[in-house]
Amino acid sequence: MKPNNDLESNSDRPRGFWSDNIAGVSPEVIAAVAACNAGQALPYGNDDLTRSLERRFADVFEHEVDVYLVSTGSAANGLALAAVTPPWGSVLSHADAHINRDECGAPEFYTAGAKLIQLPGKAAKIDLDALTVNATRMVGDVHSVQPSSVSITQATEVGSVYTLDEIGAISAICQSAKLALHMDGARFANALVALGCSPAQMTWKAGVDLVSFGATKNGTLGVDAVVSFRKDIASALAFRRKRAGQLSSKMRFMSAQMHAYLQDGLWLHNAAHANDMAKALARGLASIPGVEIQQVPEANILFCRLPMRLIRGLIDMGFGFYHDRWEPGIVRFVTSFSTTAEDVAELKRAAFDLVDSAGAISGVEV
Amino acid sequence: MKPNNDLESNSDRPRGFWSDNIAGVSPEVIAAVAACNAGQALPYGNDDLTRSLERRFADVFEHEVDVYLVSTGSAANGLALAAVTPPWGSVLSHADAHINRDECGAPEFYTAGAKLIQLPGKAAKIDLDALTVNATRMVGDVHSVQPSSVSITQATEVGSVYTLDEIGAISAICQSAKLALHMDGARFANALVALGCSPAQMTWKAGVDLVSFGATKNGTLGVDAVVSFRKDIASALAFRRKRAGQLSSKMRFMSAQMHAYLQDGLWLHNAAHANDMAKALARGLASIPGVEIQQVPEANILFCRLPMRLIRGLIDMGFGFYHDRWEPGIVRFVTSFSTTAEDVAELKRAAFDLVDSAGAISGVEV
Amino acid sequence: MKPNNDLESNSDRPRGFWSDNIAGVSPEVIAAVAACNAGQALPYGNDDLTRSLERRFADVFEHEVDVYLVSTGSAANGLALAAVTPPWGSVLSHADAHINRDECGAPEFYTAGAKLIQLPGKAAKIDLDALTVNATRMVGDVHSVQPSSVSITQATEVGSVYTLDEIGAISAICQSAKLALHMDGARFANALVALGCSPAQMTWKAGVDLVSFGATKNGTLGVDAVVSFRKDIASALAFRRKRAGQLSSKMRFMSAQMHAYLQDGLWLHNAAHANDMAKALARGLASIPGVEIQQVPEANILFCRLPMRLIRGLIDMGFGFYHDRWEPGIVRFVTSFSTTAEDVAELKRAAFDLVDSAGAISGVEV
Amino acid sequence: MKPNNDLESNSDRPRGFWSDNIAGVSPEVIAAVAACNAGQALPYGNDDLTRSLERRFADVFEHEVDVYLVSTGSAANGLALAAVTPPWGSVLSHADAHINRDECGAPEFYTAGAKLIQLPGKAAKIDLDALTVNATRMVGDVHSVQPSSVSITQATEVGSVYTLDEIGAISAICQSAKLALHMDGARFANALVALGCSPAQMTWKAGVDLVSFGATKNGTLGVDAVVSFRKDIASALAFRRKRAGQLSSKMRFMSAQMHAYLQDGLWLHNAAHANDMAKALARGLASIPGVEIQQVPEANILFCRLPMRLIRGLIDMGFGFYHDRWEPGIVRFVTSFSTTAEDVAELKRAAFDLVDSAGAISGVEV
Repeated sequence: MKPNNDLESNSDRPRGFWSDNIAGVSPEVIAAVAACNAGQALPYGNDDLTRSLERRFADVFEHEVDVYLVSTGSAANGLALAAVTPPWGSVLSHADAHINRDECGAPEFYTAGAKLIQLPGKAAKIDLDALTVNATRMVGDVHSVQPSSVSITQATEVGSVYTLDEIGAISAICQSAKLALHMDGARFANALVALGCSPAQMTWKAGVDLVSFGATKNGTLGVDAVVSFRKDIASALAFRRKRAGQLSSKMRFMSAQMHAYLQDGLWLHNAAHANDMAKALARGLASIPGVEIQQVPEANILFCRLPMRLIRGLIDMGFGFYHDRWEPGIVRFVTSFSTTAEDVAELKRAAFDLVDSAGAISGVEV
Repeated sequence: MKPNNDLESNSDRPRGFWSDNIAGVSPEVIAAVAACNAGQALPYGNDDLTRSLERRFADVFEHEVDVYLVSTGSAANGLALAAVTPPWGSVLSHADAHINRDECGAPEFYTAGAKLIQLPGKAAKIDLDALTVNATRMVGDVHSVQPSSVSITQATEVGSVYTLDEIGAISAICQSAKLALHMDGARFANALVALGCSPAQMTWKAGVDLVSFGATKNGTLGVDAVVSFRKDIASALAFRRKRAGQLSSKMRFMSAQMHAYLQDGLWLHNAAHANDMAKALARGLASIPGVEIQQVPEANILFCRLPMRLIRGLIDMGFGFYHDRWEPGIVRFVTSFSTTAEDVAELKRAAFDLVDSAGAISGVEV
Repeated sequence: MKPNNDLESNSDRPRGFWSDNIAGVSPEVIAAVAACNAGQALPYGNDDLTRSLERRFADVFEHEVDVYLVSTGSAANGLALAAVTPPWGSVLSHADAHINRDECGAPEFYTAGAKLIQLPGKAAKIDLDALTVNATRMVGDVHSVQPSSVSITQATEVGSVYTLDEIGAISAICQSAKLALHMDGARFANALVALGCSPAQMTWKAGVDLVSFGATKNGTLGVDAVVSFRKDIASALAFRRKRAGQLSSKMRFMSAQMHAYLQDGLWLHNAAHANDMAKALARGLASIPGVEIQQVPEANILFCRLPMRLIRGLIDMGFGFYHDRWEPGIVRFVTSFSTTAEDVAELKRAAFDLVDSAGAISGVEV
Repeated sequence: MKPNNDLESNSDRPRGFWSDNIAGVSPEVIAAVAACNAGQALPYGNDDLTRSLERRFADVFEHEVDVYLVSTGSAANGLALAAVTPPWGSVLSHADAHINRDECGAPEFYTAGAKLIQLPGKAAKIDLDALTVNATRMVGDVHSVQPSSVSITQATEVGSVYTLDEIGAISAICQSAKLALHMDGARFANALVALGCSPAQMTWKAGVDLVSFGATKNGTLGVDAVVSFRKDIASALAFRRKRAGQLSSKMRFMSAQMHAYLQDGLWLHNAAHANDMAKALARGLASIPGVEIQQVPEANILFCRLPMRLIRGLIDMGFGFYHDRWEPGIVRFVTSFSTTAEDVAELKRAAFDLVDSAGAISGVEV
């Protein structure tokens, strides 16, 4: 038996809004990969591109950083959490966090069995009261795992974005309780442009200790990074990365992607476009009778409630999105840097036509 | 403190024989990556390129296979060994095996603490007598870890290649003792062309259960695979890969590399060239006074004994290779698909000149 | 910094109802330990007492069993769960389960990082609907941990007892979803006498696969056991026990305790007495004005709501119990085989006097 | 399939020299256990006996200590090593160390996959040159596990004893290389009386960081301890003990044993007697023709070479010992506090008779 990795596809040419990971790669990234294929380079990150990358990240973040490239966001999260959570520790996160729901226990694997404590909160953001209670729960009691770190997803899994004040408030609790603060930034750029602030403001200035810096969803082939502002965990991160099979031998090809991603604001441009497309889609769908927007998208994810007939109709027409993971009628649309205004317009048009024709037959059921 | 990943570089333009991982990528691989960047594709291996890849591997191996792409060889080894070794099990390998010496405990991490038992043997090949003894050592004794798997590296870390008979003999011991047989094929293609046999002959027909199928050292950007001939471990491998942060979201870009690698015999062509270069280098250096070839290279690795003055001279001239990991004077040269006849000729010429001038001064010390 | 293991004590002579683990040991158990101290015995369970113990358990359970003595209940739970839950699996239990709240992540340690899924349910019993949903949640989805086992505590942490029908209903869900069913029987005997059924009826006949058979709380020095009805996990349990440092060398002294515990119904007698004392305490306290019994105790645990002044008064008089782990005013009393009718009467008398005098002053606040 | 825990027994009344773990318990220990069975006591080490035990150990060791009682020596070793070895670390020990050969990978389990590096050395003592080389091997190289701790067994597995100078020399290497020094003191007392020094001299004064303090082999029912001289690992040890299922609820019964063990020099008396018996046995057997003493025993273990016919004859007469774990003819005898002078005399007499009668028949083969 091999488990199912994912999804049904019902169209030769998907017009997909499943996730930003169905997008391809920014041409600049492909070009950079091709360009660095000249001559030899020392392996395992001893090449010039990788060496200069740490400097570049330091500039981006206005802070000395240690950077560890990895091949997936789950690896970044697992490594980061293991560096700040002992096996008998707990990671506090929102119940809907990717680390809790969608990584098949990667944090538990990397930490050698730490426990994830699920906190409630609106819009997939951690509720401060719940955090306060849990941040010091059973501290010093040998019968209980010990709160060790907090992980927030920025932007969240439902497309909301923590404000700087919200991050600061969480950080204050962390500092008071001596917990490390990790940011799962699989959609870091989307959150950043939504807030219109600097990377420094959204991270260490707000009290974040280390970041899973996502790039894959926003334009690279497959490279994310742990970016750490804490020198004391550098060694642990380096050994853990190697041990996890995440130290790439031909690392220059990962670094080349990341350089291109950060060059000339590509990452911000891509994210801003994706966010705009989500807003456009929300505006478009809001005008469709029977469609209910759950929340105006702050980043590049839109949750709506759609009539079941509309869902089925869109799928039949070749549109792709998740709709069966929440209560019936709830649909998630994700846009990306490669989503076009035409894609959005097509979807809106199709929805309008479907509702219109359905409405003609039966105004009630839809 | 950040640990040192590797190497000294002492030349702006390395003319390196450190390892095959300093090479770039075959142009066909870059082209394939660029070509698959059109449109969308389902993530996590549900794209067409990945789906067809398993079929292609089945054709290559003349056997149904499960294929799990990963980003590094260490990840492939860790996953494969974890699938066939319980935490209280042991993996029997040569003491010089990469899994034992060069992966910072990745197999121990992936297996949740299994033990690697180091066996002796000439030319980095497992000695059959030692294997026989250890294959059943303390079996059923609750105080001891239990022999569970054997891992052979093909080609080995010193560039030797197990013959089909040798693999068969190891496999016979494994079957008798009910041990799984894993092949670390970081240089699978190099061994294959050295033997001139089929992939099937070198693997399942010889009793191999699962393979770490290396591609990165021989022309791809960064993709290796676990190829398993055993259906019963498919599920474990799939979940473990995800959990290890090795399930790539944009997997099509990994699959595209692997398709290009296997297309029109590119992998075999690259490996044959690398092997030829190693042989040419051996021939070239053999003619240098004071140089002693340790073993005629079967794959793409050459070990020699060189006068220290020659070692230093070559380094000063910008040649790169490992020389300080074994006894003094022992040097390892590794060639790759990108090594040119001119690279080899240059090295030979430089060595000749250095010895000649040194010999003129002092014929003794060199 | 050393963490705090537990409790405040505020009396030289505790009259404690904190837990059944504050009790001493049945005299028969001490006698058995002393009696087996003649001559030599083979170590690690190869002695006659241990060998005959497995036969005795088979008789008790009317089923072939494998028995693994361990030093604590947490070790029993960890071992049992690890035998039926892969690292990428999940254990479904009630949120209040001891394995989830009170073992500092022991199940996560023993399983190498499996995930505990917390289910709701009244009286610390798993809600069937929640179980049904979670038993098959995300099955086959590589992004999610896989439901692998269910653990029920019998008697539960709040002193309730699953009926045979309830166990059967849970077991039916397990069988349908192919989950193993584990029973944390830290208070196995208390539940058994409460139900008045046979060990077989409460376990394998109801679909239980393996049991953490508690004895320490009910009269032994420190020995519990994993009792398994499934032959296929015997080997894994044996190696895991050794590896966990739980294979006692002088095991005869553990087996002697367990023999004495099972001899002539001592275990049932002890449990019945403890249960009776809890019922007597409930009756006694029910008559005190202002005291509210949460649930008539089925086993040896009683939860009540008490006026805060009464709580403080009892503590001042030297009575011991937990009261600050739940909402204010909620108190837990636990009785044991060594609790006497006089202990119960004293507590009742004290409570009565305290309320009486308090009532005289202020009938309202208490 | 259940693995075999151990040994053949071929006599109703074993006259065993297999190991010191076949002995019973000192009567004082039984008496102490019985004596502490009055009244209630707070659980998990909050009882008076446990609290005063740490003070007692501090007196014994003339140093502040943290003490963690556990049920087996393997648990003590696993806990201790995990406290000073990260998952990517290595433990350097002699190849014959119990932690390496006889614990089914317990250190790997407790450390989450650290690697044990096996060093050579005469008489099961670590060779200093080998230690020096390995103590700094690949330090800072991310591809390799990092030397983190050294574990020495005192007395060793073959009955030899490190001198204070030898321990000091090892400690000097550890300090220079920043490695923690652990002492597996399963036979701590035997070594101590052999050296005739103080516990302080044999441990922290010689540079030892933490000790697995064995008591079970020398007179208790089943209790050993981690004794740590380093405050910085106290917290980790406490949580790891709980998590490993090694925090006993009725700990007073373990503490009572340990108090009795340390009271009035019982532990030293027991060990001295065991050592004397081993010496007596060596003297006795040395006089038997054909018997070759491998080394005059320093502690309570004696290795000899015996004619095969003599081995078989002794076994036939009901004597028990290990003889098939090393090369043919090598026999291990272990004495204990309960070995009597008569036991030793009987064995000598039997050996003498067997050789005599065999010699009469055939002087050659024996």
